[in-house]
Amino acid sequence: MNEIGLIGLAVMGQNLALNIARKGYSVSVFNRTSEKTKEFLEERVKNEKIEGYHDIKSFVESLKKPRKIILMVKAGKPVDDVIQELLPYLEKGDLIIDGGNSYFKDTSRRIKELKEKGILYLGMGVSGGEAGALHGPSLMPGGSIEAYEMVKDVLLKIAAQTESGPCCTYVGNDSAGHFVKMVHNGIEYAIMQAISEVYDIMRKILKFSPEEIGDVFERWNNGELNSFLMEISFKIMRYKDEETGKHLVDLILDEAEQKGTGKWTSQTALDLGIPTPSLSLAVEARSLSFFKEDRVKLSGKVKKTYPDVKLDKEKVIKDLENALLFSVFTSFSQGLWLIHEASKTFEYNIDLPEVLRIWKGGCIIRAKILDFLREILNENKENVNLLDSDKSISFLMDKLDSIRYVTNLAKEFYIPTLVLSSSLDYFLSMVEGNLPANLIQAQRDFFGAHTYRRIDKEGIFHTEWEPID
Amino acid sequence: MNEIGLIGLAVMGQNLALNIARKGYSVSVFNRTSEKTKEFLEERVKNEKIEGYHDIKSFVESLKKPRKIILMVKAGKPVDDVIQELLPYLEKGDLIIDGGNSYFKDTSRRIKELKEKGILYLGMGVSGGEAGALHGPSLMPGGSIEAYEMVKDVLLKIAAQTESGPCCTYVGNDSAGHFVKMVHNGIEYAIMQAISEVYDIMRKILKFSPEEIGDVFERWNNGELNSFLMEISFKIMRYKDEETGKHLVDLILDEAEQKGTGKWTSQTALDLGIPTPSLSLAVEARSLSFFKEDRVKLSGKVKKTYPDVKLDKEKVIKDLENALLFSVFTSFSQGLWLIHEASKTFEYNIDLPEVLRIWKGGCIIRAKILDFLREILNENKENVNLLDSDKSISFLMDKLDSIRYVTNLAKEFYIPTLVLSSSLDYFLSMVEGNLPANLIQAQRDFFGAHTYRRIDKEGIFHTEWEPID
Repeated sequence: MNEIGLIGLAVMGQNLALNIARKGYSVSVFNRTSEKTKEFLEERVKNEKIEGYHDIKSFVESLKKPRKIILMVKAGKPVDDVIQELLPYLEKGDLIIDGGNSYFKDTSRRIKELKEKGILYLGMGVSGGEAGALHGPSLMPGGSIEAYEMVKDVLLKIAAQTESGPCCTYVGNDSAGHFVKMVHNGIEYAIMQAISEVYDIMRKILKFSPEEIGDVFERWNNGELNSFLMEISFKIMRYKDEETGKHLVDLILDEAEQKGTGKWTSQTALDLGIPTPSLSLAVEARSLSFFKEDRVKLSGKVKKTYPDVKLDKEKVIKDLENALLFSVFTSFSQGLWLIHEASKTFEYNIDLPEVLRIWKGGCIIRAKILDFLREILNENKENVNLLDSDKSISFLMDKLDSIRYVTNLAKEFYIPTLVLSSSLDYFLSMVEGNLPANLIQAQRDFFGAHTYRRIDKEGIFHTEWEPID
Repeated sequence: MNEIGLIGLAVMGQNLALNIARKGYSVSVFNRTSEKTKEFLEERVKNEKIEGYHDIKSFVESLKKPRKIILMVKAGKPVDDVIQELLPYLEKGDLIIDGGNSYFKDTSRRIKELKEKGILYLGMGVSGGEAGALHGPSLMPGGSIEAYEMVKDVLLKIAAQTESGPCCTYVGNDSAGHFVKMVHNGIEYAIMQAISEVYDIMRKILKFSPEEIGDVFERWNNGELNSFLMEISFKIMRYKDEETGKHLVDLILDEAEQKGTGKWTSQTALDLGIPTPSLSLAVEARSLSFFKEDRVKLSGKVKKTYPDVKLDKEKVIKDLENALLFSVFTSFSQGLWLIHEASKTFEYNIDLPEVLRIWKGGCIIRAKILDFLREILNENKENVNLLDSDKSISFLMDKLDSIRYVTNLAKEFYIPTLVLSSSLDYFLSMVEGNLPANLIQAQRDFFGAHTYRRIDKEGIFHTEWEPID
C-alpha cells in the first residue's frame, strides 16, 4: 500500500511524483493513457518507490486509507472527469488534492459537491514550473484545515525550503489556494511584461545586443531586482540557437500565449472593484502581441521619425532598473489588495504576510523584494496594498523620476509600455486626493439621473442639469 | 385594446412610454408598485393614450394580439421575475422586448428558454438616457428577425432621426443587441474618462476655472470633437450650484460609480482575446477613484514638486484636443473590433457600418466623428478595428506628437492619464511589427515548457534552456 496517489503524468505531474518519492514517500501513479505511465516508469524512475497503475480501480486500491490523491491534470472539464472516475472507488474521509490551475469558482463548487459525499478536497496552487515541481515548488493549498492536516507533512517536505521555512502554508478556506495561485500568476504576467518592456527599450533605443542585455539583467539580478524571472531572463538572453548560432530570443515569434489565469485575475478584480491596471494591461499586451500579421502590415504604413538624442546609457540603465522595481512593487501592491478583498468577500481568512513568505522560494515570482514587502506588511497588516507606509512611499518616490523618464523616452521611440505606464498611473491615482471622477459623476447624473455625492455635505443628490420635457 | 405594453416605470420607462404614445401608439403600462403608475399617469401623461394597470393579468389582457411588451426593469433577476409573472398570461407568438442593460449571456438564455414556449424575445439596447428615451433614443434590437419585424414600425418611429435615417436597425441574431449596447457603454466609459483626464490637466496645470474649461469644451464641440458628451461637459462646467453659487462640478465627490456594462465589456474582451486597453482602464479608473479616503490619506504623504515650465496655453489646448480625438478614435477602434469578434464567435451577423450609423443620434456616444469612422469602414468592411486605412493612420499620426506631449506633461504634474496613455500604447502596439513578446514566450518555455514558435521556420518548439534534473 502506497502513501500518496498522483494522477496526470504530464511534466508537472511526473516531477511532482519524483519529488514526493525522493522525500521518502511511496507513490502510486496513474495516467489516462497508459503509454505515458510506462514511459515515465522506465525513463525517469530510478530508486524512487513509485508504482504505476493502468486502471483507476487498482490505482485507488493500492493506496493506504484514508487515501490521498493528487490531481495534476488540465484545469476545467478534465478535473471533473477524473473526479467522476474516482468517486466509485473512494470512501468517506478520502482526500483529493487538485494541484492544477483550476478556476477558483470551480474549486469552490467541487469542495461543496464532494463534501456532501464525505470526500475531502484541497485546491492547491503549485508554482515553480518543471524545475520547481521536481526540486521544491511553492505550494498554496486551500480548503478545510482538516484536509490540510492530512497531508501537511508531505507538503511541507516537498515544498521549496527557505530560511524563513518551507514555501507552503494553509492558505485559507474554500478556494483560497487556487485564488492566491491565480493572483500569483496575474502578478507574474505583469512582471514578465514589465521585463519585456525594459528589454524592448534596451534593444530598440540603446541598440544593445542580447548579450549586452543579458549582462544588464545579470547585474540587476545581483541587486534589488534579484528574482527568478530576472535570472531566467539573463540566461535566455545568452542562449544561442544550436542550428543557426544566433541568439535564440531573436528567433522566437513575438506572439505571447496565455492559459487563462492572468485573464481570470483581471476579470475577478473587475468584479471585486479592486484596481489592477498593471495586471490587466499585461494580459492586454499579450492579446495585442497576438495580432502579428496586422501589426507587421500596419507598421509598414507608419513613418517613424526618431529623436536625435544623445543618451547617457548608464543613466538610462539605472532608470530602467528603477522603473522595473517601481512596476514590480506596484504589481504586488495590486495583487495583494485583490487577495485581501477576496479574502473578505469569500471569507477565505488569508494571512497576507504568510502568502508573501511562501512565495519566497520555489515559485515563478520569487524575488528578493518579497522580504521588503513582508516587512512593510508586518508593520501594519491593514496596509493591504502596501502603499500606506513611509517605506513604500519613499521607495516609489525615489523611482518616480526614472519611470516618468523611461516611459516618456519609450514613447518618443514609438515603444509601447503598457505595464510600466499603468504602474505609474496606478501610483499617481492612489496618491491623488482629487481625481476628475467628479466630472464623470456629473455626466452620469446629467444623462442618466444616476445621482452623485458632494464633498460639502452628506447625502445623495440629483440635478436637473437642463430641462428635458 | 392597446398596441404596446410597457413594464417598469422608472424614469427611462416613463419616458419611453411617453415617446411611444406621442408617436400615435396606444400604450398599456404596469409597474411593480402601483403608486408609481398612478403618479406617472397623474403627473406626466397629458393627451397621450396611456393606460395604467395594477395587476399583470389585466395589463396583458389589455393588449392586442400578438402582444408586444417592452420591459424597462433593472437588469438581472428582476427581468427573470417579470418574465415568470407574465408567462401564465402570454400566448404563442407574443413578443417580449427587454430594453434594459441586460448581460448578453442572460439575453441568450432567455431567448432560448422562451423560444421553447413559443414566445418571441428581443434583447434591445436603449441608449440616450432620460432625454433620449423621451425624444428619440438609439435602439439596438437583437434576436430573431421575425420578432424584429413585429415591432419594426414603432421602433423606427420612436428612435432618434438623423439625415442617414432612424437610429434603429436590426442588429443581429440572438443577444447581438445587448452585446452591441454593452460595448457602446464600454466605449462611453473610455470617452468619459478621456474627457475627465483632459479636464484634469486643464484645471491642474493650466489652472483654468470651470468657466474657462467650459469655453474650451464648447469650442471643441464646434469642431471635430462635436458630440453629446462634449456638449454636456461644457454645460456641466458652467452649471452653478443654487445654494452656494459655486460651480457644481467642484462640489461633486470624485468617486465614479458604475453599473456593470463597462466591466462586462472588458471581461468579455479578455475572454475573446481582443485588446481593449482603453476600455479596460476606464473601468479601472473608476475603481481607483472609489478609494477616496485612501487617496486623500496617501496624498498627504507625498511631496510633489512641480516643474517650472512656461506653457503656451493655446498650444496645450490644441494638443489636448488632439489627444482627446486620438483617444476617442482608438476607443471606437477597440470597441468595433470587439463587436466584430463577438459577431464571428456568437454568429450574430452584425453589420458594423450600420452599428455606427445607429449610434449617430440619440445615444450617449453620438458624435460627429462617427461619420468619419463609417466612411473608413465602408471603404473596407474587413477593416474591423479601423486602423488599416491611410485615412486612419494619417488621422492618428497627425495627433501622435500631441498625445505624447500631453501624457508626458500630465505625468510631470503627477496627473494620471489611464485612458489617454493606454490609447497611445494601443496604437503604438498595433503599428509595431516587432513587440517584445518573444521574451515572454522564451520565459514561458523556460519555466513551464509551454513551447514557442519561430520567425525563421514553421512548427512548435521547446528548448531545454538549462538542465533541470
